[in-house]
Amino acid sequence: MKKPDSNLLRGRFTRTMSDDMERYSTSLAVDLRMLDEDVDGSIAHATMLGEVGILSPEEAAQMRAGLERVREEIASGAWVPGDEHEDVHMAVESRLTELIGEVGKKLHTARSRNDQVATDVRLWLKHHLEYLDDALGALIATLLDRVEADGQALMPGYTHLQRGQPILFGHHLLAHAWPLARDRERLADALRRLDHSPLGACAMAGTGHPIDRGSTARQLGFAGVVENAMDAVAARDHEQEVAAACAICMTHLSRMAEELIFWSTSEVGFVRLSSDYATGSSIMPQKHNPDAAELVRGKSARVYGDLQALLSLVKALPLAYNRDLQEDREPLFDAVETTSASVGIMEGIWRTLTLTADRFEASLEGDFSLATELADLLAERGVPFREAHEVVGSIVRWCEEQGAGLEVLTPEAAKGFHPAFPDDLTPWLDPRAAAERRTSLGGTAWSEVERQIELLRGSLT
Amino acid sequence: MKKPDSNLLRGRFTRTMSDDMERYSTSLAVDLRMLDEDVDGSIAHATMLGEVGILSPEEAAQMRAGLERVREEIASGAWVPGDEHEDVHMAVESRLTELIGEVGKKLHTARSRNDQVATDVRLWLKHHLEYLDDALGALIATLLDRVEADGQALMPGYTHLQRGQPILFGHHLLAHAWPLARDRERLADALRRLDHSPLGACAMAGTGHPIDRGSTARQLGFAGVVENAMDAVAARDHEQEVAAACAICMTHLSRMAEELIFWSTSEVGFVRLSSDYATGSSIMPQKHNPDAAELVRGKSARVYGDLQALLSLVKALPLAYNRDLQEDREPLFDAVETTSASVGIMEGIWRTLTLTADRFEASLEGDFSLATELADLLAERGVPFREAHEVVGSIVRWCEEQGAGLEVLTPEAAKGFHPAFPDDLTPWLDPRAAAERRTSLGGTAWSEVERQIELLRGSLT
Amino acid sequence: MKKPDSNLLRGRFTRTMSDDMERYSTSLAVDLRMLDEDVDGSIAHATMLGEVGILSPEEAAQMRAGLERVREEIASGAWVPGDEHEDVHMAVESRLTELIGEVGKKLHTARSRNDQVATDVRLWLKHHLEYLDDALGALIATLLDRVEADGQALMPGYTHLQRGQPILFGHHLLAHAWPLARDRERLADALRRLDHSPLGACAMAGTGHPIDRGSTARQLGFAGVVENAMDAVAARDHEQEVAAACAICMTHLSRMAEELIFWSTSEVGFVRLSSDYATGSSIMPQKHNPDAAELVRGKSARVYGDLQALLSLVKALPLAYNRDLQEDREPLFDAVETTSASVGIMEGIWRTLTLTADRFEASLEGDFSLATELADLLAERGVPFREAHEVVGSIVRWCEEQGAGLEVLTPEAAKGFHPAFPDDLTPWLDPRAAAERRTSLGGTAWSEVERQIELLRGSLT
Amino acid sequence: MKKPDSNLLRGRFTRTMSDDMERYSTSLAVDLRMLDEDVDGSIAHATMLGEVGILSPEEAAQMRAGLERVREEIASGAWVPGDEHEDVHMAVESRLTELIGEVGKKLHTARSRNDQVATDVRLWLKHHLEYLDDALGALIATLLDRVEADGQALMPGYTHLQRGQPILFGHHLLAHAWPLARDRERLADALRRLDHSPLGACAMAGTGHPIDRGSTARQLGFAGVVENAMDAVAARDHEQEVAAACAICMTHLSRMAEELIFWSTSEVGFVRLSSDYATGSSIMPQKHNPDAAELVRGKSARVYGDLQALLSLVKALPLAYNRDLQEDREPLFDAVETTSASVGIMEGIWRTLTLTADRFEASLEGDFSLATELADLLAERGVPFREAHEVVGSIVRWCEEQGAGLEVLTPEAAKGFHPAFPDDLTPWLDPRAAAERRTSLGGTAWSEVERQIELLRGSLT
Repeated sequence: MKKPDSNLLRGRFTRTMSDDMERYSTSLAVDLRMLDEDVDGSIAHATMLGEVGILSPEEAAQMRAGLERVREEIASGAWVPGDEHEDVHMAVESRLTELIGEVGKKLHTARSRNDQVATDVRLWLKHHLEYLDDALGALIATLLDRVEADGQALMPGYTHLQRGQPILFGHHLLAHAWPLARDRERLADALRRLDHSPLGACAMAGTGHPIDRGSTARQLGFAGVVENAMDAVAARDHEQEVAAACAICMTHLSRMAEELIFWSTSEVGFVRLSSDYATGSSIMPQKHNPDAAELVRGKSARVYGDLQALLSLVKALPLAYNRDLQEDREPLFDAVETTSASVGIMEGIWRTLTLTADRFEASLEGDFSLATELADLLAERGVPFREAHEVVGSIVRWCEEQGAGLEVLTPEAAKGFHPAFPDDLTPWLDPRAAAERRTSLGGTAWSEVERQIELLRGSLT
Repeated sequence: MKKPDSNLLRGRFTRTMSDDMERYSTSLAVDLRMLDEDVDGSIAHATMLGEVGILSPEEAAQMRAGLERVREEIASGAWVPGDEHEDVHMAVESRLTELIGEVGKKLHTARSRNDQVATDVRLWLKHHLEYLDDALGALIATLLDRVEADGQALMPGYTHLQRGQPILFGHHLLAHAWPLARDRERLADALRRLDHSPLGACAMAGTGHPIDRGSTARQLGFAGVVENAMDAVAARDHEQEVAAACAICMTHLSRMAEELIFWSTSEVGFVRLSSDYATGSSIMPQKHNPDAAELVRGKSARVYGDLQALLSLVKALPLAYNRDLQEDREPLFDAVETTSASVGIMEGIWRTLTLTADRFEASLEGDFSLATELADLLAERGVPFREAHEVVGSIVRWCEEQGAGLEVLTPEAAKGFHPAFPDDLTPWLDPRAAAERRTSLGGTAWSEVERQIELLRGSLT
Repeated sequence: MKKPDSNLLRGRFTRTMSDDMERYSTSLAVDLRMLDEDVDGSIAHATMLGEVGILSPEEAAQMRAGLERVREEIASGAWVPGDEHEDVHMAVESRLTELIGEVGKKLHTARSRNDQVATDVRLWLKHHLEYLDDALGALIATLLDRVEADGQALMPGYTHLQRGQPILFGHHLLAHAWPLARDRERLADALRRLDHSPLGACAMAGTGHPIDRGSTARQLGFAGVVENAMDAVAARDHEQEVAAACAICMTHLSRMAEELIFWSTSEVGFVRLSSDYATGSSIMPQKHNPDAAELVRGKSARVYGDLQALLSLVKALPLAYNRDLQEDREPLFDAVETTSASVGIMEGIWRTLTLTADRFEASLEGDFSLATELADLLAERGVPFREAHEVVGSIVRWCEEQGAGLEVLTPEAAKGFHPAFPDDLTPWLDPRAAAERRTSLGGTAWSEVERQIELLRGSLT
Repeated sequence: MKKPDSNLLRGRFTRTMSDDMERYSTSLAVDLRMLDEDVDGSIAHATMLGEVGILSPEEAAQMRAGLERVREEIASGAWVPGDEHEDVHMAVESRLTELIGEVGKKLHTARSRNDQVATDVRLWLKHHLEYLDDALGALIATLLDRVEADGQALMPGYTHLQRGQPILFGHHLLAHAWPLARDRERLADALRRLDHSPLGACAMAGTGHPIDRGSTARQLGFAGVVENAMDAVAARDHEQEVAAACAICMTHLSRMAEELIFWSTSEVGFVRLSSDYATGSSIMPQKHNPDAAELVRGKSARVYGDLQALLSLVKALPLAYNRDLQEDREPLFDAVETTSASVGIMEGIWRTLTLTADRFEASLEGDFSLATELADLLAERGVPFREAHEVVGSIVRWCEEQGAGLEVLTPEAAKGFHPAFPDDLTPWLDPRAAAERRTSLGGTAWSEVERQIELLRGSLT
């Protein structure tokens, strides 16, 4: 038998790469954002290897200490991963072996980069979704504070950006708060679904080593494990789900932003963003540009792009791992971080803006938006709705012919149009009364606004 | 006081529209797919109006009967809505009034088209998501049947579409089944979140009529009501969430489709789609085009497009209703129906395809994909993983130099590379044994496959 | 030698398909929109086959006549393709053979469905892009008419939806017209690039028959042929390019729509859409919902979705034809038709809307938006721009302190701030003069507006 | 008259901002990538101000020198813009004034950040699209080299990833080269359309200063000016067009990548990427992961995301400038740079890969993919195509019954199926002859391949 050539004992990866390709393929910059998660994962893995006897207690302890030192060195900049480390995993393990010697080479037993990166990303999401949830809670709380402070301001309810019915500002603002509460639920569902540890799945098929996946899962705070090893390394649906929840949340913020921009115009003049969130110019003091709201609106588009990238990326990829998947982190991290930052900005905007609470009140007196009140009044008195509608249409035209609003409608005149009108129309022609009359569940009446404040406050604890 | 002009008594909508605009703005064709939901909603509304005394019991009964008749007439084609009915709501109400007279004009009391269409869409989703859930359950069941039938077939586990380790086909197939189980959860979460009735929100502000939103919600099978009336008519996040869940599900199907197409090539020859789902030509019998799988893969793209449309559509829309929102139904319905149909097709494909279970087995004997076994063996015997890796690299090169595979590695030769090798290498060089050795939780061993079958079967009941 | 079994002589497609799969895989409904193109392509092909001697002159003539008859029958509904014809190509050929007998079976010589469908789609695009180009031309012409009619109206130029400088409405409207002119160029470039005939590429490899691809190309009005047969059947970049150009055009329309909606609010009141393009209610006459503009804005989202679908669809598809590609027509046709219809609607909106030309004029007197005039005045007199800016900032604050606008600034007061101010400030404090002063190339001065009208009119001929 | 308070003389921007908002709103990091363009633009502007007499010759010269120094300082890191400079424009101007004093304050005369950033982005695109065009030219040239070297290799032409007809590899590879040639045209069209200078548009309305926009355009190498000042600052269609062209180009690269990955499998084994572009492992030498191709395929998704972000971003934005637009640069730059890098990587892959040119040849002997040859032969001899097809179908079945391929078909046997068969079938049953017979324009015959090489080489000069 031929004696093995010692030169053959060098069993390293044989890859060399051109500079262009190195630049094209590196993920180190993005990966370093998962440094903590990567080190945490390795510590849990080392501990488990010690528990099941693959490592001695001393080896496991040595590794844990070494990993903590690597974390500090990289975090503090004392040691900087170079071009030869293509990702954070290789960088950490390589530095570990420099620090603690041979035993470092045992760290990768019963593990592969496939399950390692899958674990890191899920841990990253666990941390960052918690933060996003807090931010959303803070935004909702601020909106509720604002409802309590200014919610009784009367304003026109718009459809088609045309004035419809008089409503309370609090009613309107709650219509922005509820979707955010659903965003929290949606993100919580996504979090619950991804809260399973892939660690121990190895390349795709598990291992023959007597590992304990439950232990690493518990150490890392996962609620459970991913049941199938190939699914554990190949799945990216949790990332798409998170990005989708972020995109939906950004849609909500963009609608809020659009209204803030509209309300900030000199034509409307309902709100004024604080100088922290707006830019102005001393030579054009009338300009108070709602920059922060515009940026939130604009950044919604980038999160849509992130989501589309994540969907198209995984489309039609065979199992298990493909290098394409390296491209998942940039859009995923961007979606989560952009959304978190945008929620925070929106919270600041609402906390600090100035509202001209009486901006609309006077203009709603005698307004034709009260016409529906008259139709409801007739309907209440038994006139079929469609007929009531026609009658009031006639009244409105008659007012218009006089160049006036509904304030000219006396009870006598009203009865000339339909005998069912009562002797006193005052309560029906007062915009605030009109708003307060809508006491049906979820209606604009203040009592309903208060009920919802209670409900939403309850969801925040 | 001027006597009201009787000509003014005509209080209709004053709109007239050019033909082009009529064609551009109509939603009747799409809306008619919600005919059942619209009629159900109106019946519930009429019943509630009767319960709270806005209608007499007779009126309510008359309306219910009339509405059922309208449903039948439209469904059977006995009455066809014309161009003058711009949407399904107007068509139904208008026909109802023709059929039952004046009382029909009372139907729209305490209701608006805004809450009506919001209700219809949610009802439609409740019905269609139930169907999609069934279809997904059937697909998972068929996959499990297939795992039980053919799951012990040995195949190469791929990463980068390159052969990695020997695995059981059942392990691979379960990696497709689990994501579908998550799709069901995701859709169930979306369904739970949208399962609230908007009916009674009216235009956006609720109403002063003493309606009972809880009653209509109960009648229609909703779990609750949307708490804020403006949110009820303005929100579309539930539609985006459903479309996102569909897009994610289609991603899963597209990955499955890609593999079926790869496995159907003459180069691989692992599966053959049944003639129901493939096309062939008698003059090129080697061609057995996996059309159904290609269509599933292709249709994933359209669902991504639907989702993108739904996100961009709502971006930066002010509250409450804007006519843009009419555009939500086409992409939403398309996403749900395309996904349901694709799941059904995939179920048929798997139920009827032919698998060449022994396609890969022989080719894996002595394959270098067993090299990791040898490295694991050394690691098990205390050799640090990275070192074990290097040793086995040398062995592989030595085999390659001889133009052979691992079958030439005798125990003696192995010990020449490292003394830790045992006297018998047979169990480590057998691909099936290699697969069966991976008994870690979620590993490819048959026992783990069986465990997962149990778990997934449990989720189906 | 075994005698061939006559039963084997039946060489049909062996495919059978379940109903579900038939429904899933059919493209007949969409394909029928290309009936004319398909028949045109077949006539050209038959004529060419006659020219090169593959068909006799009589056969070619018979086919042409037969094909015209099939076209009429299908168009008139006299003959209806059934479920057994999976696409328009099979339907036409099959009916042709019924009508003219055996000779019909020769039509498919030297042709495949791959090059046939590629040809049909390109022809469809040639026809429909011509129509879209006309529609865009008409919209630009209408905008220019409007500029000529109302373009001298003074309005605030907005940035951040905040009033900046006084401009002429004509200047603003031209900023909408120019992008449309670029849309026409973009679509013309796309058309030029796709104006090559794939016919004769056959399945992907060309043919040994002595066909003349130049002849069919010329007959069908193509500018040339696709040079590579595999490219001819596999390429879809021209479809993506058209969809992208449509998406960009819709972005332009959406911006226009957004402004129309803003200008239609009661808060702004600058325009009023004609009743053909708006909906109102007699009981809320103040509501004049700009539905048509909202629909245009909304439909932009669907075209984005179409584009996304077309990109994701083709991503990572191997050459040459894959069944996925059948999914290209729905989004492509939808993108083109939605854009054409939207352009037409926008033309109608602008042709018929009412503009309140003096809406803004008075409100701009003494407005701080004139402050930049004063800064420019100083800069013109040698004061460094940043310094001039600071000086004017002080003036503005001084006016504000008095609760007044710039109308209180006398020349003497001005000189107190900076000696470079002239004795007469009148021309600098008049908003119309401010607009007219901006005569730099492309500035808002009427002379520049007129120059651009000329240029754009020139592009329309 | 009240004496102006000297405290009021401070006319700076009054904005202050919280840290969060500063981080949220800064664009400095992205903007610095346009440093060269920004300085070039300022130099051109200063020169023009000198030409028209707004600056003295000395002032203009001083500014130019100062700007060059700022460029060097920032590029070399000698001066680092801090948090107080929100974008590159402010940083440059501010440093300039520090360096050259008061005269620096005149730079911004007759200019605004709106036209400045619009100019910078167009200049950046001009530079980077030139680079991308070069890269595409290099890739096409490499593909043509490869066609010349290996193009005569015989391979199966695939449809549905099923083997269809025998073709030359050169024919296939050209089907990838032609789309890239169209990509170059598409990008050139986009470049031509954006090659107009916005500089001098100022905020949106032009200026009263006697500037010469033609001069700055000429200095900066623009082909012309944007004709309307508001369009100049508000338009982003050129960015969307570039991103769309990039997305289409990436689609082409992704298709190429998919095939490289398929061809690299052990099942196909047609190509092997060089070690610069692949990763392998010494212990699994059979694994030669085509990482570079996978990354190209994956990165196509991110460019789709970039395009969607750019479309959604601008949707429904009113004119002229809105802060949302700051978000345009990240996706735009990413799209262009990702595409350029991917084209470069693909060029390297093709330049260095190893092709097993005889991989397929033998396997195509007697292959049923030659059956179409027999059908064409009959059609050539006057048998209607559909009938010929049926006859050959019978032959194929007869061969199959014998468990053989077409090699068993003697001329006598053939005549038993149809008398039109000739005495010698050899040329029709040879795969290379079959490929070479397809000499129709664009067919797979080598003469046609050579003709196309010529055409494409011509387009590269």
